Amino acid sequence: MARKPIITLITDFDTVDHFVGTIKGVIYGINPDVEIVDISHKVASYDIFDGAFTLAQSYRFFPADTIHLVVVDPGVGTSRRPLLARSMNYKFVAPDNGVLSLIYEREENVEVRHITSDHYFLNPVSATFQGRDVFAPVAAWLSKWVEVDKFGDPITDYTKFTSPRPKKVGDNLIKGVILKIDKFGNIITNLLPEDLPQLFAENPPPFKIIINQQEITKLNLAYSMGKPSELFAIVGSNGYLEVCTNRGSAAKILNVNRGVEVGVMLGTPSPAVPESA
Amino acid sequence: MARKPIITLITDFDTVDHFVGTIKGVIYGINPDVEIVDISHKVASYDIFDGAFTLAQSYRFFPADTIHLVVVDPGVGTSRRPLLARSMNYKFVAPDNGVLSLIYEREENVEVRHITSDHYFLNPVSATFQGRDVFAPVAAWLSKWVEVDKFGDPITDYTKFTSPRPKKVGDNLIKGVILKIDKFGNIITNLLPEDLPQLFAENPPPFKIIINQQEITKLNLAYSMGKPSELFAIVGSNGYLEVCTNRGSAAKILNVNRGVEVGVMLGTPSPAVPESA
Amino acid sequence: MARKPIITLITDFDTVDHFVGTIKGVIYGINPDVEIVDISHKVASYDIFDGAFTLAQSYRFFPADTIHLVVVDPGVGTSRRPLLARSMNYKFVAPDNGVLSLIYEREENVEVRHITSDHYFLNPVSATFQGRDVFAPVAAWLSKWVEVDKFGDPITDYTKFTSPRPKKVGDNLIKGVILKIDKFGNIITNLLPEDLPQLFAENPPPFKIIINQQEITKLNLAYSMGKPSELFAIVGSNGYLEVCTNRGSAAKILNVNRGVEVGVMLGTPSPAVPESA
Repeated sequence: MARKPIITLITDFDTVDHFVGTIKGVIYGINPDVEIVDISHKVASYDIFDGAFTLAQSYRFFPADTIHLVVVDPGVGTSRRPLLARSMNYKFVAPDNGVLSLIYEREENVEVRHITSDHYFLNPVSATFQGRDVFAPVAAWLSKWVEVDKFGDPITDYTKFTSPRPKKVGDNLIKGVILKIDKFGNIITNLLPEDLPQLFAENPPPFKIIINQQEITKLNLAYSMGKPSELFAIVGSNGYLEVCTNRGSAAKILNVNRGVEVGVMLGTPSPAVPESA
Repeated sequence: MARKPIITLITDFDTVDHFVGTIKGVIYGINPDVEIVDISHKVASYDIFDGAFTLAQSYRFFPADTIHLVVVDPGVGTSRRPLLARSMNYKFVAPDNGVLSLIYEREENVEVRHITSDHYFLNPVSATFQGRDVFAPVAAWLSKWVEVDKFGDPITDYTKFTSPRPKKVGDNLIKGVILKIDKFGNIITNLLPEDLPQLFAENPPPFKIIINQQEITKLNLAYSMGKPSELFAIVGSNGYLEVCTNRGSAAKILNVNRGVEVGVMLGTPSPAVPESA
Repeated sequence: MARKPIITLITDFDTVDHFVGTIKGVIYGINPDVEIVDISHKVASYDIFDGAFTLAQSYRFFPADTIHLVVVDPGVGTSRRPLLARSMNYKFVAPDNGVLSLIYEREENVEVRHITSDHYFLNPVSATFQGRDVFAPVAAWLSKWVEVDKFGDPITDYTKFTSPRPKKVGDNLIKGVILKIDKFGNIITNLLPEDLPQLFAENPPPFKIIINQQEITKLNLAYSMGKPSELFAIVGSNGYLEVCTNRGSAAKILNVNRGVEVGVMLGTPSPAVPESA
């Protein structure tokens, strides 16, 4: 293979301490001919869903054969298993705590293995930094094209959560949830255009997005189309409906965070204009 | 060309989300043999001048043929044009919003093109993340030595602001402005030694730098030459006059930020010693 | 040498400004075939011990011949000397302010040179950014296998501090100190298992760790074994005794920072059971 293999890193380690650098040292010590790419080290501490979502937003933009290493690992040092998952195009190395759940949802035919071959580890393995001692070395050996079956046997009882899906509540109301607040304060919901096809039809009905008792009634095509402090919806770069404001933080204006409910009412009849009139 | 091409990144994306990692995935997918270097992802959000200044401070320290990718793009999704600029030694890829203004000032014979060849883009192009869909792929193809004229035609009506220059107000007063507060709290002004040659002459006159009604009257050769909490001036690493304090934040002491006026009075006569005496 | 040389970076520059990117530009300009790895740019500003400790925690996880560049340099622009140190496996480039002290302690036969060959510098050398003008170019030339004796002569009077060691106070009390609070709020002390062998024996005596007048009496094998808000001790990934809590910040609970005393009392006799009884 002429192409240099890529290992990406997603962790909740932040970049203040030596952790990320040390992991890279371990990887380069095993495979000097690898490209290491930071996706994010600012996953919220211990937050498995945030790690899973960060991975889901980015993994498919990497070339085939990329190895995605995800270390959000509040159970480090316990018997939670280290996993190696493989889909058609990618490999994933992560603890068995659900952080690969969105991969199991999105990729077909994912084969998951329990990594047991501890001769690939940095021994003695510490109880507190297995990103360094277990996950990084396994990713590095994988990047040297060691066969996946050398690391351990397939399992099917791995931990998996189901990502929250919007719910229809009657004909005109759909309820979703905030998945993430991004750096700019944009509110990423779990609503996809396919959940709200009417909104994207030729003559969309009036609608209300309700978050924290406030109503958003406008859909824009670009962030900068909004007036100052005006809240509006937009379809984000991964397809999710976002609520945002031009050059400001929608999350601050609405005072919301991840997990808050997002309601969408379609075709709201105006009570001031009775139909019989 | 034996040398691996370099693409640098300047954005206001921060490193909390997946954005920067995703951009790198897209680049490596197109050109696995490129070196990607982060300059800063902490440009103030939507702040075109801050992006321009970050680029101006760093671009010329990179080897010839480096491609500088600048994505500070509050107008993403609108009709603002994506640009490819080329000077003798560097290429620049950025939105047409003025973020390359300091390059137009400093580099000679900059050729600017409107990028229109959308077969180089990641299609379908999103309305909210054209760093991923437009700018990164163009930079990646450029790093594979695709000719600049393949991307679009030259234009001359690109957006350009003029960087603020100090003004002489009478013989002994010059007025400048704060361009940036750096990480340490050092205050970077737009005053260059050539604006204040007397200060750097063999027998410099007394002087006063006035910021937020406070006076700085000392010029030091090194940060550590100041006494605790003492404010003094120094010539910074890009030639600008800075106001700083030893191991502390001058910006906090003076309670100032970018854009605040900086006055310099030269040869201030001492009112206590009348000339006729 | 087939292996690409590695230069690691430890600084207090943060990643907000252009500083780190500029340093990388300078390095790639001299040696395009080098791997640059960030260890941390968030060393506390001007904090030589924090830089030394970050280096000590990470340097040995890198492959042999790695060049570690450490720029925590409050004396930049003064006559403090730039140093090149070499141990059996590594090279270090740093200012002579003690930031290599833990290397002098841990590595055998460290040879330290005063870098004086200014033709390797980026001239003219600025007074405020010698990371760019002195340290980065020297590291880059070293990565091209320029012999260390080309940079300057050996010295023995370099600055060195002694890292704080625990003290025995009577038979059952040992006093240490907090070396670092990590990103998660874990409290890293300077106590090693060899300072407290009884604690790690087959039948360990009861013990009390006393920090800021609070007592910790439990030792766990993994972070997640603690109950919510419970404080406990653990042996960290570099061997130091840490005080932590499950999914939370022990440092916040105890309201402590670096430098605070840590007492350990072993085999505390229960006062309620008089020995003569």
